[in-house]
Amino acid sequence: MDTADVDALAEQADMLQVGARNMQNFSLLKALGEVRKPVLLKRGLAARVEDLLLAAEYLLAAGNEQVILCERGIRTFETATRNTLDLAAVAYMKQKTHLPILVDPSHGTGVRDLVIPMSLAAAACGADGLLVEVHENPVEAWSDGAQSLYPHQFEALMSSLPSVLAAVGRELA
Amino acid sequence: MDTADVDALAEQADMLQVGARNMQNFSLLKALGEVRKPVLLKRGLAARVEDLLLAAEYLLAAGNEQVILCERGIRTFETATRNTLDLAAVAYMKQKTHLPILVDPSHGTGVRDLVIPMSLAAAACGADGLLVEVHENPVEAWSDGAQSLYPHQFEALMSSLPSVLAAVGRELA
Amino acid sequence: MDTADVDALAEQADMLQVGARNMQNFSLLKALGEVRKPVLLKRGLAARVEDLLLAAEYLLAAGNEQVILCERGIRTFETATRNTLDLAAVAYMKQKTHLPILVDPSHGTGVRDLVIPMSLAAAACGADGLLVEVHENPVEAWSDGAQSLYPHQFEALMSSLPSVLAAVGRELA
Amino acid sequence: MDTADVDALAEQADMLQVGARNMQNFSLLKALGEVRKPVLLKRGLAARVEDLLLAAEYLLAAGNEQVILCERGIRTFETATRNTLDLAAVAYMKQKTHLPILVDPSHGTGVRDLVIPMSLAAAACGADGLLVEVHENPVEAWSDGAQSLYPHQFEALMSSLPSVLAAVGRELA
Repeated sequence: MDTADVDALAEQADMLQVGARNMQNFSLLKALGEVRKPVLLKRGLAARVEDLLLAAEYLLAAGNEQVILCERGIRTFETATRNTLDLAAVAYMKQKTHLPILVDPSHGTGVRDLVIPMSLAAAACGADGLLVEVHENPVEAWSDGAQSLYPHQFEALMSSLPSVLAAVGRELA
Repeated sequence: MDTADVDALAEQADMLQVGARNMQNFSLLKALGEVRKPVLLKRGLAARVEDLLLAAEYLLAAGNEQVILCERGIRTFETATRNTLDLAAVAYMKQKTHLPILVDPSHGTGVRDLVIPMSLAAAACGADGLLVEVHENPVEAWSDGAQSLYPHQFEALMSSLPSVLAAVGRELA
Repeated sequence: MDTADVDALAEQADMLQVGARNMQNFSLLKALGEVRKPVLLKRGLAARVEDLLLAAEYLLAAGNEQVILCERGIRTFETATRNTLDLAAVAYMKQKTHLPILVDPSHGTGVRDLVIPMSLAAAACGADGLLVEVHENPVEAWSDGAQSLYPHQFEALMSSLPSVLAAVGRELA
Repeated sequence: MDTADVDALAEQADMLQVGARNMQNFSLLKALGEVRKPVLLKRGLAARVEDLLLAAEYLLAAGNEQVILCERGIRTFETATRNTLDLAAVAYMKQKTHLPILVDPSHGTGVRDLVIPMSLAAAACGADGLLVEVHENPVEAWSDGAQSLYPHQFEALMSSLPSVLAAVGRELA
């Protein structure tokens, strides 16, 4: 996404997403601050929690109050997973900001079979929502197939989520 | 702990713990492999999951089958928390090894108010147990006070845990 | 810098700089690929060397052959310095690409008194140039004062550089 | 190395080395503090500079004043090199401590062809010595072959070093 595309996109889209690599593209953030559509702001690969919250301020300061944060993993030395999903950042931010916080366990792990357990963990520590990749046949996906759930896995996730949410005093919207 | 202390400790202790900074102290691991007491092996601050599993092999190869792994956070650029608790490593290891896996959210976050949510998240993604610091009056603790739960917080954790565990098909021992 | 500014800037500027936080702003890179002015591409805080080289391909593929790379430190757990200056990346890239490579020891360390030794080290391992911040009175600098050289330090650097360069078979332009 | 071996080793060896994985093996450090032989203390993979200096204090406090520090790379997300050689740490420590500091560009990069440029860079930024692996036929080395110099490369390094050292006002011992 580029600042030049913001107006056209905002007319059509229900929500605009700022990818991790654009989290500190301040021109883009300022342009999105002028929009009256929700903006999903993903944490950068090297962003501290404080950096993410400060990036959100660019949107809020420009008048867009519909900001949603997203934890999607940071870059560390660990190679078993594509990124290191920092769920403590979710719990931390829940105590520091009123903004809703999503978790993306697909990018956060890069490994299909870790998406369900990490989705449940995200729910247990306070996440307000999930961003999960599903594909009818992940093996043939054009991108991110290795981290995409099969439809039956997505169903399994959706049947497990309510009881985890209930256990922490929340429920599915 | 030092190799010279292993025998004396093994006679008295119910379990022997290898701290994160000793995870690749191979002399110590070999000595503990000879013992017939459970060994809790904590992940090093810069250890990949693979390194932890290979360190466990030193114990197993020497004949000690009572090995328990522990995720306690890795060192990253994030400073909001003392370490970065890598819960995806727990879910990953549950699929790679039969060894039980504990999570230490006290060292893993270093922040008292994050211990409960991260404990519940650990339970939700498959951890077999928790290592949680509690102190009657954390402000006066000789060490690690900032990450120690007050007794009433520990009670709150223990009352929330069973329903999260039930939600993922498990129960408190 | 934003794509909308590229044309106006390219008319006036001798060189266009892509900051570390924009290294993977692909819309911007494509726009700069159309320009016929040199582009200085700074390494992102979480960018692997491979990511930097691939980002440069966006500029090259769009027809701009005047690309200069810049190592300016990556984000790690070390806090003694603002970033971790990765000089091995410079030596590595010198063997992989024909593009010139600068080093920014000011951002790379964030510490004034480290700028001279790291500048000399950069010269010794093959850097083609330096990006060094100097200020008449760093204490009063509006930004980055802590990493800005005093004028007399800059003079000292410039008097030491030629002999280090000569020692590795190069000379000041 | 283990505490049990310290006395026997100290009788025979000219210098005792604490490997990176033992940098915070405090039992070992205390035992080595009692010895009257030089100790080479290598930086741990996740050790901040401050941690290394504090580990050295265990040796100094126990009475061993012959402590030599060694930068050998830290563990980061970069995969082009085996570790990330932190030469700024060398320049930083030269300003904070009187202890001599070596650099190990072999472990620090893991790449043979980076050893010479990083050795020269180390010399340029103040290192007091180098730890370089050389092998008559690195392809057949039992370990660390990929980072070992061929003899002719070592000769080339030794012929380049004096002029770099001279350029920064030092000379080969």
